[in-house]
Amino acid sequence: MAVQRLTSRDIRSESRLDVMTALVVAREASRNDLTRQTGLSSATVATVVAELIAAGIITEGRTTTGKVGRPTTVLHINAERGYVVGVDVAETYVRAIVFDAALDEVGSAQVARDEHESTAEYVADGVERAVVGALEDAGVSRDRVLGVGVSLPGLVVRESTTSILVPEWTWHESGMSRVRDHLGLPMVIENPLKAVAAAELWFGEGRESGSFVTLNLGTGVGAGIVIAGEILRGATSSAGEWGHSLLVLDGRGCRCGRRGCVEAYVGAPGIQETLREVDPEHPLAHADLQQHFIEALAASLAADSADPAVVETIRRTSYYLGSAIADLVAIINPEVVTLTGWTAWALGDYLVPLTRDVLVAQAPGESAVDVHLHVSTGRGNLVATGMAVQAMTRFLVDVGLLTSKVPAGL
Amino acid sequence: MAVQRLTSRDIRSESRLDVMTALVVAREASRNDLTRQTGLSSATVATVVAELIAAGIITEGRTTTGKVGRPTTVLHINAERGYVVGVDVAETYVRAIVFDAALDEVGSAQVARDEHESTAEYVADGVERAVVGALEDAGVSRDRVLGVGVSLPGLVVRESTTSILVPEWTWHESGMSRVRDHLGLPMVIENPLKAVAAAELWFGEGRESGSFVTLNLGTGVGAGIVIAGEILRGATSSAGEWGHSLLVLDGRGCRCGRRGCVEAYVGAPGIQETLREVDPEHPLAHADLQQHFIEALAASLAADSADPAVVETIRRTSYYLGSAIADLVAIINPEVVTLTGWTAWALGDYLVPLTRDVLVAQAPGESAVDVHLHVSTGRGNLVATGMAVQAMTRFLVDVGLLTSKVPAGL
Ligand SMILES: [Zn+2]
Ligand SMILES: [Zn+2]
Repeated sequence: MAVQRLTSRDIRSESRLDVMTALVVAREASRNDLTRQTGLSSATVATVVAELIAAGIITEGRTTTGKVGRPTTVLHINAERGYVVGVDVAETYVRAIVFDAALDEVGSAQVARDEHESTAEYVADGVERAVVGALEDAGVSRDRVLGVGVSLPGLVVRESTTSILVPEWTWHESGMSRVRDHLGLPMVIENPLKAVAAAELWFGEGRESGSFVTLNLGTGVGAGIVIAGEILRGATSSAGEWGHSLLVLDGRGCRCGRRGCVEAYVGAPGIQETLREVDPEHPLAHADLQQHFIEALAASLAADSADPAVVETIRRTSYYLGSAIADLVAIINPEVVTLTGWTAWALGDYLVPLTRDVLVAQAPGESAVDVHLHVSTGRGNLVATGMAVQAMTRFLVDVGLLTSKVPAGL
Repeated sequence: MAVQRLTSRDIRSESRLDVMTALVVAREASRNDLTRQTGLSSATVATVVAELIAAGIITEGRTTTGKVGRPTTVLHINAERGYVVGVDVAETYVRAIVFDAALDEVGSAQVARDEHESTAEYVADGVERAVVGALEDAGVSRDRVLGVGVSLPGLVVRESTTSILVPEWTWHESGMSRVRDHLGLPMVIENPLKAVAAAELWFGEGRESGSFVTLNLGTGVGAGIVIAGEILRGATSSAGEWGHSLLVLDGRGCRCGRRGCVEAYVGAPGIQETLREVDPEHPLAHADLQQHFIEALAASLAADSADPAVVETIRRTSYYLGSAIADLVAIINPEVVTLTGWTAWALGDYLVPLTRDVLVAQAPGESAVDVHLHVSTGRGNLVATGMAVQAMTRFLVDVGLLTSKVPAGL
C-alpha cells in the first residue's frame, strides 16, 4: 500500500515525544514518574532521557529528599535551551507569544489588523511587527529563538459575486518568506484548526485520549481532528473544515460562498442571525462587535430572570450545534469532543447540556452515548500556544530527535 | 500521549502485509518485482519472503526463462494453504463466497432472507446455511478453512414510533457465537462499510493511495474511510456513517429515525422519492424492487431520447450527492473518492460528471479540484471479498505474522 512506511527511527521518535510532552506537562519528574506516565519501559526512558540531556533539552535538577529519606534526581525541561514564538493571525489582530523551551509564556505583543485588508504584504508586516514586539516584551534576543510558528486562517476573498476560501499556502510564500528572511528565523505555518489541535494534543485531551475532535467556536468555526495521536491534515491540508459542511442544503448564506454551512448557524454572526429570527427588534440583534454580542448573551443568561428571546436563541443554537456534531460523530466516531474559542468559553455552560441531548438523539445508534462533550480546559490563546508547540516540534525534527510529520517549514 | 505505541514488530508486520498484498494482486512475481512494487529494500523482501515461505503462505513456483535466458524463480501465494469465507448479510439475502488463500473465488452460495425478520437466531441460521452451502459448492471440507468473515449491517429496528440503528455488536454475540460453535471455525465480524474499504485497500484504490473514501451506494449508503493505510473504525466501530449525516436539517425522514440524512436523498428509495417529486405520475415512481428501479433509470438514460423526468431526477441526485461528498472533503480531505454498490455501477456514468461539478463548487476553496472521483474498479460482491480479506488478515495475526489492527474475533 502506498502509505508512509514506519521505521525504527519513528519508534524512537515517538518515545522521545512522549517523554517531552510528559515532562512539559508535569514540569518536573523523576525517571520513574516518566516511566509511569508514558507507559514506556524504564530502559527506554533511561535511553531517551540521556539523549535529551545530551541535546540540552532536559536537565537534571536539584536532588530532593523524599519522605523515606532517599534522594531523588528530578528532571525538567531546560527552559534556557531557547525560545519559541507562536503567532495567531486572527481577523482583527495579530498576536505573538514568546515561550521558553518548557513552553512557559515569557512575553507577548499584539498588533491591530484591518480585517478588510489581507494582502500578503500587509499580513506579513503585521506578523513581523508582532514577533519583534513580543521578543522585546520578553527581553529575548533573536539569536535565542529556536523557531516561529505562524497560524494563518483560510482567508475569505470576495471576488465580484462569488467568494472563495483561499488557503494560506497560495499566498504565504511571498509574504511569509519575506518575514522569515527579515527575522532570520526558522518558521512553520499551519491553519488555526490544526494549531488548536496541537495545543490540545500536548496540554489537553491528548493526555487522555488518542482520538478526539476540538471544535473552535468564534466568528468562524472549525474542527481540529486527531486520530491515533496524529493531527489529520488531509490531501491538501484542509481537513477539519467542518464549519463549511452542510447543516441545511440551500440554507443561510455563508461567507465562504456556499449556502447552509454549519458556520452560518453556530458562528457568532450565525447566532446573532438566529436571535434576529427569534426577535428582530431585540436590542442585541444588531450589536456591533461579535465577541461583545456573545458576552452579552452570557450576561443575560446569568441574570436573575433570563431574557426569553436569548433563552430561545440558545435552544436553537444547541439544536444546530448538536446536529452538526452528530454528523462528525457519524463520520469520524471520536471518543471525545472538546469545545474551545470565545463562544465556548462564554456560553459553554449553557450550550453543553442542551447540545449533548441533541447529539445523543441525532448521532447514529448508540455512537454518541459515551462521547465526552465538554469545554476544553485550555485557556488563553490556544492558537499561539499550538503554533509554539509546532515550532518546538519542528526544532526537534531539525536536530534529529523527531521524525514526526510536522507542517512544512519555509 | 495515550496512543497505540509502535513497535519494531509493527514494522515487520507492515512489510509482510505489503509483500502479501502485492503478491495477491500480481498473482506471481519475482523477489525483484516485489522490491519494485513495495518500495521495500531487497534485503527486507528476502527476509519477509523466507518467513512467508516457512509459514506455507508463499511457494516458490516454476522457474521460467526470461528473454535474456536467465532462469528466474517466481513466487506466488500458496493457494493450497487453505480457504477463507466472506459472508455478506444483506437486506434480502445472505451470500457466502469461498476464496482460496490467493483470494481467488472457488465457490459460493446464497440464501434468501426476509428483510422484516432480523432476530439473532434467524440471521445466524442464514449465515450458517450460506457458509455450509458455499463450502459444498467449492468442494472444500471444513477443516481446510482458515477463517470466516461476516459482514453484518447496522440493522434498523422499529420500536413503536421511533426506530434506532442497532449496531451488530449488540446482538452478534448470541447468534454469531452459536454459528462459530456449530461451524467450529474462527470468525471475524465487521460492518459492510469497513468490509468494502478492506476490499478497496487490497484490490482497488489502496494500491495507489493511502488516503481514500469508498462510498457504497445501494438501498443504504455509507463510507469506508481509509487514512494512512488504516481503515478508520472510530471509538465504537461506527465511523463512516456518512449516510446518516445531515444533508438538510429537518428534511426528509430517514429509516434511522433522524430527519434529513444523506441516505434519504441518495439511497435508492431516496432517488425514487426525488422522481416522485419531479413527476408523481411517473411509471417508475412506485416501482417495487429498488435495484430494478435503479436499473430502469439507467435503461431510460441509455435510450435514444431520454425521459426528461429521469434526467431531472439524475440532476437533482447529483446535486445531493455532490453536496454530501463536499462535506466529506471538507472534514476529511481525502485524495480519492470511489463509488461502489449497484447504484454506482448502474448510474455511475451519468452521476459522476454532474456530481464532480457540484463537488468542486461546494467543497471549501480548492480542496476538491484534485480529488479523483470515480466508480470503483472492483466488481462482484465487495462486501464478501472484503470480509474474506479480513478473515485472511485475522489468520495471519493468529499465526504471528501480522500485528495489524483487525476487527475483534469471536
Ligand atoms: Zn461556509
Ligand atoms: Zn439516517
